[in-house]
Amino acid sequence: MSDVVAIDLGGTNIRAARVDKNGKILVREKISTHAKEGMAAVVANIAGLVQKVRGPDTVGVGVGTPGVPNHKTGEMLLPAVNIPGSGGFQLTKELTRLTNLPVSADNDGNLAALGESWLGAGKGEPVVIIFTLGTGVGGGLVVDGEVYHGTHNLGTEFGHLSIDYKGRKCGCGNLGCIERYASASAVGRDAREALSAPNAGKSLMLELAGGSIEKVEARTVWDAAGKGDALAIKLADDCCDYLSCAVGSLINSLNPSCVIIGGGMSLAGEPLRSRLQKRIDEGRAFGPIAKDARIKIAILGDDAGILGAARMALNVAEHSVQKS
Amino acid sequence: MSDVVAIDLGGTNIRAARVDKNGKILVREKISTHAKEGMAAVVANIAGLVQKVRGPDTVGVGVGTPGVPNHKTGEMLLPAVNIPGSGGFQLTKELTRLTNLPVSADNDGNLAALGESWLGAGKGEPVVIIFTLGTGVGGGLVVDGEVYHGTHNLGTEFGHLSIDYKGRKCGCGNLGCIERYASASAVGRDAREALSAPNAGKSLMLELAGGSIEKVEARTVWDAAGKGDALAIKLADDCCDYLSCAVGSLINSLNPSCVIIGGGMSLAGEPLRSRLQKRIDEGRAFGPIAKDARIKIAILGDDAGILGAARMALNVAEHSVQKS
Repeated sequence: MSDVVAIDLGGTNIRAARVDKNGKILVREKISTHAKEGMAAVVANIAGLVQKVRGPDTVGVGVGTPGVPNHKTGEMLLPAVNIPGSGGFQLTKELTRLTNLPVSADNDGNLAALGESWLGAGKGEPVVIIFTLGTGVGGGLVVDGEVYHGTHNLGTEFGHLSIDYKGRKCGCGNLGCIERYASASAVGRDAREALSAPNAGKSLMLELAGGSIEKVEARTVWDAAGKGDALAIKLADDCCDYLSCAVGSLINSLNPSCVIIGGGMSLAGEPLRSRLQKRIDEGRAFGPIAKDARIKIAILGDDAGILGAARMALNVAEHSVQKS
Repeated sequence: MSDVVAIDLGGTNIRAARVDKNGKILVREKISTHAKEGMAAVVANIAGLVQKVRGPDTVGVGVGTPGVPNHKTGEMLLPAVNIPGSGGFQLTKELTRLTNLPVSADNDGNLAALGESWLGAGKGEPVVIIFTLGTGVGGGLVVDGEVYHGTHNLGTEFGHLSIDYKGRKCGCGNLGCIERYASASAVGRDAREALSAPNAGKSLMLELAGGSIEKVEARTVWDAAGKGDALAIKLADDCCDYLSCAVGSLINSLNPSCVIIGGGMSLAGEPLRSRLQKRIDEGRAFGPIAKDARIKIAILGDDAGILGAARMALNVAEHSVQKS
């Protein structure tokens, strides 16, 4: 059975795996990124890693990268922020030259979405939307097993859906972006502000953070809400109401069969999922469209990206077989 | 050269045209819908119309209908509101039986989007979003010449993008839907409310409406704004700010190459387009994504739907040639 090599290029490590057609990881390797040495050196190291993990039946390479590669040409349209020389770099051309294998590349967020839709929470679903709730809010859209790319692979910036046309100011220049309300960072900040208010009552959150307001984070909110703390429950409810507005707008726009919540805050799990589902069903999305769209929690964790990179490489190999 | 028959099923009239591969309309016909006679009778009338306008080289039929047909099976998933017996009706199967031609069907809004992207304001654009501003707000998404359908063809309800999570109540059950702010109905209502306020000053709008507040509509607002009326200019600016929030969210989500404004209010033309473009460029959409997305005004008017129906039938015919 043929297989592919999947690469997850991160700021700290480069992870590689050989993956078969069923998504079984056959071999894994990991090296340090040494981002400061620049993109050419990083890609040479990736090529070495490919040679190490490839097998006799390897038919292609899929690379997930920070920044945004052009999905058609493999040129880096937006640089990987921490890797000098990555902007404009001919990622797939150079790696094809070094490995003699067909190489495809995409943004790491898109590939995490593809991985979850292939083998994770979105398995078997025709139209999958992912919201990743971490430091920021990211997203992805996968239709019939292929990533949606828009004009230049710059879309699915679901963190910059606005839920209030005169709302909180976002770094992107807009007002009301959901990233400013329902990212892990935003929920942590809302909690610290609430606890710092002059009229703030007692809250378990402060206790869980060892008495230090500065140590209260999104996870503190969800932990305390699970233990019945009233202020934490209000913050969790607010977070899910904000999120339901953005998710509901996307459901009405894209008629997905499921919406997957990923990223660090998805560790809150069922209490987050059920609150969000409830708000969607109560009216945030339109009747028959809401019925199609089940809210799920991501299940693949760190492997979503590498499995997505494998799926992309397999798609490319299958398309080229169909063409020949 | 082969051609197709395109049908635009409306509540009042059924329009038909024979259209060639270049979008040239060769023959036109129109009959009354007689919706009350029910869907079976209506479809029999459509079949008669097809026989009348088809030629020796006609290879297929495309039908645009109110309500929502399943894009794969042609069964009516949501009924055409004014036509009894349309819910669940096997639209394409029945019409194929009656005409002996391959029949495809889609929602009329989707086909208007497809028509504009084929031969109208979106000609040559890879990713086209349409907002239609009329009694309500509708939408469509066309990617590489094909309509985006989502799971069950229920999406692209762009009128139900929320721009305020605690905003105006919408009939759909949500709060803040853009339909409640930037449809022609909403703009007219906002104008009448502003003119009825106890502190309302003089406005040219009232004069243009013959002194009767009840006769002030969206077009009155745009006419008076064009003549420099301060209150009308404020209403036009507000409308475009609301709209920029919804359009900006979609641009960030879908990275379109253009956004077309259609529907009755698009007759406002350049003053609407330029205001909206300005707000998008000022920050409602994210830098490089905003750069891709040019705002345009629809140009095909009533023919958008019939040309879209023709394009769909041509797509089906081309796919079946590729397969055979």
